Amino acid sequence: MASERLESWVGSANTAVTDFPLNNLPYGAFAGAGRAGVCVAIGDQVLDLTALEAAGALSTPSGAPLFAEPRLNALMAAGPAVWAAVRAELTEALAARSTRQGEIAPHLLPMDEVALRLPFDVAEYTDFYSSRQHAENVGTIVRGPENALPENWLHLPIGYNGRASSVVVSGTDVHRPLGQLRPPGEEAPIFGPCRRLDFELEMGAVVGQSSALGRPLTVGQADEMIFGYVLLNDWSARDVQTWEYRPLGPFQAKAFATTIGPWVVPAAALAPFRVAGPERTERLLPYLTEPGPMAYDIALEVELAPEGGEAATIARSNARHLYFSAAQQLAHHAVCGCPMQVGDLLGSGTISGPEPGGYGSLLELSWGGREPLALPGGASRTFLEDGDTVTLRGWAEAGDHRIGFGSCTGKILPAVAEPHWT
Amino acid sequence: MASERLESWVGSANTAVTDFPLNNLPYGAFAGAGRAGVCVAIGDQVLDLTALEAAGALSTPSGAPLFAEPRLNALMAAGPAVWAAVRAELTEALAARSTRQGEIAPHLLPMDEVALRLPFDVAEYTDFYSSRQHAENVGTIVRGPENALPENWLHLPIGYNGRASSVVVSGTDVHRPLGQLRPPGEEAPIFGPCRRLDFELEMGAVVGQSSALGRPLTVGQADEMIFGYVLLNDWSARDVQTWEYRPLGPFQAKAFATTIGPWVVPAAALAPFRVAGPERTERLLPYLTEPGPMAYDIALEVELAPEGGEAATIARSNARHLYFSAAQQLAHHAVCGCPMQVGDLLGSGTISGPEPGGYGSLLELSWGGREPLALPGGASRTFLEDGDTVTLRGWAEAGDHRIGFGSCTGKILPAVAEPHWT
Repeated sequence: MASERLESWVGSANTAVTDFPLNNLPYGAFAGAGRAGVCVAIGDQVLDLTALEAAGALSTPSGAPLFAEPRLNALMAAGPAVWAAVRAELTEALAARSTRQGEIAPHLLPMDEVALRLPFDVAEYTDFYSSRQHAENVGTIVRGPENALPENWLHLPIGYNGRASSVVVSGTDVHRPLGQLRPPGEEAPIFGPCRRLDFELEMGAVVGQSSALGRPLTVGQADEMIFGYVLLNDWSARDVQTWEYRPLGPFQAKAFATTIGPWVVPAAALAPFRVAGPERTERLLPYLTEPGPMAYDIALEVELAPEGGEAATIARSNARHLYFSAAQQLAHHAVCGCPMQVGDLLGSGTISGPEPGGYGSLLELSWGGREPLALPGGASRTFLEDGDTVTLRGWAEAGDHRIGFGSCTGKILPAVAEPHWT
Repeated sequence: MASERLESWVGSANTAVTDFPLNNLPYGAFAGAGRAGVCVAIGDQVLDLTALEAAGALSTPSGAPLFAEPRLNALMAAGPAVWAAVRAELTEALAARSTRQGEIAPHLLPMDEVALRLPFDVAEYTDFYSSRQHAENVGTIVRGPENALPENWLHLPIGYNGRASSVVVSGTDVHRPLGQLRPPGEEAPIFGPCRRLDFELEMGAVVGQSSALGRPLTVGQADEMIFGYVLLNDWSARDVQTWEYRPLGPFQAKAFATTIGPWVVPAAALAPFRVAGPERTERLLPYLTEPGPMAYDIALEVELAPEGGEAATIARSNARHLYFSAAQQLAHHAVCGCPMQVGDLLGSGTISGPEPGGYGSLLELSWGGREPLALPGGASRTFLEDGDTVTLRGWAEAGDHRIGFGSCTGKILPAVAEPHWT
């Protein structure tokens, strides 16, 4: 059951509509006002933890600096006991009854005056495929309704390794990718800009602890290794993917950019919003057994804004629709003995809700490009056009407050000019 | 045309059979004799570059230390001009006519007295599928001879992202992985140790320079970014792969270990051995155009040694059979705008020669497990058994010398005990 709002001496944090009440305290990395560092969001402010630590105003429960670098990896590597200690200290220091306001306040900066950076160094990036509605939609579009769900789908969280170097932070422009594709009806492939460019509405789990080569994890152990969650847009070149993916899976279609939100919401802040996932059709093998409910009730939405046009919400979904939890994904990832690393990012897969208005990609919303999606002012889309801006939002709703993720946004720019190839 | 052997004052380097004449100078990382650092191999010795640099006996053409850390990443990041300058200085210092023997000799260590470590931090690991014979063999085994080669295969170097954290150095033991698999004829999957464990004979290209997000590379640019090459064994759990790979490709089947050889042979040492690859059936799109011959004439072999049994060479192949070069693979990797990083590792894919004795995996050598491979002493194998040791070797042959890669070896240990899952 969701808890009540904790009151802060930062007034803007004490509302039902801010993403960042005291209950949240998501971590990010910022630059601005001549500073750069790690911060937490509180109302419309960010608290500069790097400066706070340097000033000696933060305990260092690990004995070593946690925020000397402007990224979260050192904090994550310090482990769950340190995560809990830092969170408890910040909650105390920012609480309405705190006596430390005079010491803390000089390290607050207005959020709209700083730039938010990639919050952690992404070690490796894995993307899963764990929404049943999404898998059934894609399977129906590609193979027809008889074979919609792959035969392994209900038994394991299907995933593939993505490209960590292409993970960018919200606000980064995305060039339409070049690639090899084969237009329908053509015998030979061509080269050029992607014609079926798409977004994917996802959550990302941020792995905060490592595991050893050759050592599988239980789902419970895996859950304790997850530091927090971000919004994630897995931009996809559908036509490149269709041509390249057999037999080894998506490659260039998913490697030009993956955008994550700037705020890593701690798993601790989301604990009150744990719910059971969808009912299971097949009994899972023991290594995927969950010790308790491990889905999250997190509302999600997608907004599409054409260049100079009106923004429209084109999809509403919820993370509770995920058939496999991030903890199950992580346990499956390590089951062969694969070592996991601090900073690994696990994409959930596109999170499509059961209704058409809840589908998390244009591929599904336009049903493979066959049914254009109407936008305000008479425009429509099958896939993304140059100048389009896609924004994801997400929050766990508790009545008098919400645990929000901020926004995860990216604008499509035209393809870059081709080099002289020879 | 291959050059003549360069004579060194290190006598063991002046033979036709050593892997490490002065013409080679492959880089590695070592620990032993109370030291750890970067080294080059010369005959039966290693030259400690970290100590040499610290003693002020190496020029520092980049202005910053190249060998302070016991890995190659700093040297690679310094760029091709520095790679050439360091190689020229070492070639001069170790040449028979060198006047620097007294200064250099104290930094030589016998190779058999040091342990060789992972030579570079692997940024990301990608594995390709670029031997036509291998792809046709696998396609025939899995789908039959009519559809042996996927329809995209002749047009692009098919690849998938692997798991960098699971790359280990030669000599590391490999536990038989646990995983989810579905035995033939069964309706539901089971969990347990892999039953069809395999090796794959590959080369790895080591990317020594980075590229920017959204900036494609020509094949020529890509070639200049490749620092060197290693032997690579892409251990594979065939039964796990068969069950998991549709539709997003191999995942846990390839993530328990990938073994690379300890020696990174510089691209410069292999330049005399460049040859044209196999004849092309389809004309390639312009972005994959090679400015010249970009395959390498490198002999490869695989040795299998059962526990306590006799070692046998079970396959002989050659890197010249690769249909797509590492430079083409790298150019294709970046074509969507994917940023490449210093330390990226590109596996060639299994390199199978045109004859059955040249197949680079047990899957092919036993034709899907249907034709057991006979070993000396009456033993046979369809797939790997616990206690088996697999060793890869490779060298470019120049008559009076060879540019060798040393050996890339790994022993299979039994699966680890399963945790208590709940």
